[in-house]
Amino acid sequence: MSVVTIIGAGMMGSALAFPARENGHEVRLVGTHLDREIIDECIKTGRHPKFSVSFPSSLKYYQIEKMEQAIDGADMIIGGVSSFGVNWFADFVLPKIPDTIPLLTVTKGLVDTADGKLICYPDVWQKKLDELGSKVSINAIGGPCTSYELVAHDQTEVAFCGKNTDILRKLKNIMTTDYYHISLSTDVLGIESAVALKNGYALGIALTVGLNQKERGLDSELHFNSQAAVFGQSVKEMKRLLTYQGCDTLENLVVGVGDLYVTVYGGRTRKVGILLGRGLDIDQAKSKLNGVTLESLVVAVRVAKAVKAAAQKGKLCIKDFPLLMHIDDVITNKAEVNIPWEKFTFTV
Amino acid sequence: MSVVTIIGAGMMGSALAFPARENGHEVRLVGTHLDREIIDECIKTGRHPKFSVSFPSSLKYYQIEKMEQAIDGADMIIGGVSSFGVNWFADFVLPKIPDTIPLLTVTKGLVDTADGKLICYPDVWQKKLDELGSKVSINAIGGPCTSYELVAHDQTEVAFCGKNTDILRKLKNIMTTDYYHISLSTDVLGIESAVALKNGYALGIALTVGLNQKERGLDSELHFNSQAAVFGQSVKEMKRLLTYQGCDTLENLVVGVGDLYVTVYGGRTRKVGILLGRGLDIDQAKSKLNGVTLESLVVAVRVAKAVKAAAQKGKLCIKDFPLLMHIDDVITNKAEVNIPWEKFTFTV
Repeated sequence: MSVVTIIGAGMMGSALAFPARENGHEVRLVGTHLDREIIDECIKTGRHPKFSVSFPSSLKYYQIEKMEQAIDGADMIIGGVSSFGVNWFADFVLPKIPDTIPLLTVTKGLVDTADGKLICYPDVWQKKLDELGSKVSINAIGGPCTSYELVAHDQTEVAFCGKNTDILRKLKNIMTTDYYHISLSTDVLGIESAVALKNGYALGIALTVGLNQKERGLDSELHFNSQAAVFGQSVKEMKRLLTYQGCDTLENLVVGVGDLYVTVYGGRTRKVGILLGRGLDIDQAKSKLNGVTLESLVVAVRVAKAVKAAAQKGKLCIKDFPLLMHIDDVITNKAEVNIPWEKFTFTV
Repeated sequence: MSVVTIIGAGMMGSALAFPARENGHEVRLVGTHLDREIIDECIKTGRHPKFSVSFPSSLKYYQIEKMEQAIDGADMIIGGVSSFGVNWFADFVLPKIPDTIPLLTVTKGLVDTADGKLICYPDVWQKKLDELGSKVSINAIGGPCTSYELVAHDQTEVAFCGKNTDILRKLKNIMTTDYYHISLSTDVLGIESAVALKNGYALGIALTVGLNQKERGLDSELHFNSQAAVFGQSVKEMKRLLTYQGCDTLENLVVGVGDLYVTVYGGRTRKVGILLGRGLDIDQAKSKLNGVTLESLVVAVRVAKAVKAAAQKGKLCIKDFPLLMHIDDVITNKAEVNIPWEKFTFTV
């Protein structure tokens, strides 16, 4: 038996309590300062307010003030904050993790730099650890996994990435179940880029759903030719971006494409894309989804900024990213959705 | 104005009458001997019995006996037969096409050889043309396009492939509309392989839907983690097969992946996959879908046979295709569906 401490009681972090606890480990779920009511509810009912089923029995719940107690004696820590909590996690949590306890983070995203680079969160945090003189091993999860389906025990394939193969094997050994299947990779930037890049593109595919609803009515049947056209273009642009990131491997591509597939269907990104496709502008769409965090928009805009910066330096060609540029234009400049279909074609 | 003659009044061939006629061309739709009642119905009502909307006005309909009249003066011929009509088309139609009229075929599929090669239909037909001493240019359509959505004017991206770039440009010029977007490629084997390979894999993704229905009830919500896991593995295996075919380009991959996406949702392959996932064997599933042609099963089994033959010669490794092997086992040997999830993982 191991001890698994999850910091951040959002949906994804909390969902990982299921495979961990079902494998017989002690699981300690720590809420951040934003999760206070969630933890109260978990203590009272044994159920996360956003899940339809109860946690496995004997989970331990902690408010943020007791985080150090929850970390003490842990064999691994799962970082379960959203990308909006990256700095908080760096400043507040990282300094309190002993060198001996490996970290596995679910936080997805990329940070763009002025010269068009895209940096993943494990690398952002590594810098912080280096400053602290900490030797904590940072590992990350990528791949197609919606939290509520993991909770429902749908068969799920993800990838754990990190620099140390022994630690990766240990983490897989703790977390793997007959429904949670784990690939391992030492290409952290590759896995993290692949699963972050998909965000804008999932939004793009959802735009076609909204466009069709605008034209044919809200209750009209889904059309898949147009979704598939944007899906194909998305894969094209994602693969080019993986090449730019120096990590265009089959494994990374497949993890990203799978994640794109699930994101088209799973939740918030789809919702905002459909609203934009129907003709709402980004402010109207956001206000309709009041209270929902939209990490995907942030990532999409950052990736577009990096592409533009890289293009200015002659390292990428804007023409190779017509879909991303349009999505960025819709989000950033409130451009009307008008998918550049003909620009997706290639020719002899 | 050009004259477009479509031979074969199945759904896909007939659907292409829409962009062709809406572009102002004369369109002649010729039924095969199997399409007699369809043509009768079209003449009577102006509507294909399987479409929910009427054809554009002034389409011309021909029974098979008048095929030569319909070919006379045509600027292009669209071959609209299913893969079960490949030999009939070679023997009966090809000899009647003048050298000056280019052919564009929608027939999808691959033929395996004893030594593990996979040959596309344009190459099968080219052999026949060479025997005939014919100079007809064979071109083909690949990419994500369901006929009924094309008819509904959903935005659609396909690729035309052929050896002659001038002819490709001419065909695009005749067929392109504001909803039908056409890439061009001289890599015939690449495009045709990509769109044929997807068949077994689309079935594989549909298996997960059926498996979930078996476990959670027929009315249970769709789960996407498991679909995405199989989708990702499908892309992995398809890319390996494209490499084996000598045509692993970004364009081919993207056309294949888009086609995979649409095939998961669009029709017969999905239906049979779901039935198999629910626990029916292949005979039970086929009899439930009585009267429906299942080209996808044929292609999947042929590709699996080719992989096994190539593996025996040391050119491929069976272990790289766990999904295809399982699908083949389900179709060929009535194996129980038991997706090898853990075999999809990669490791350090």
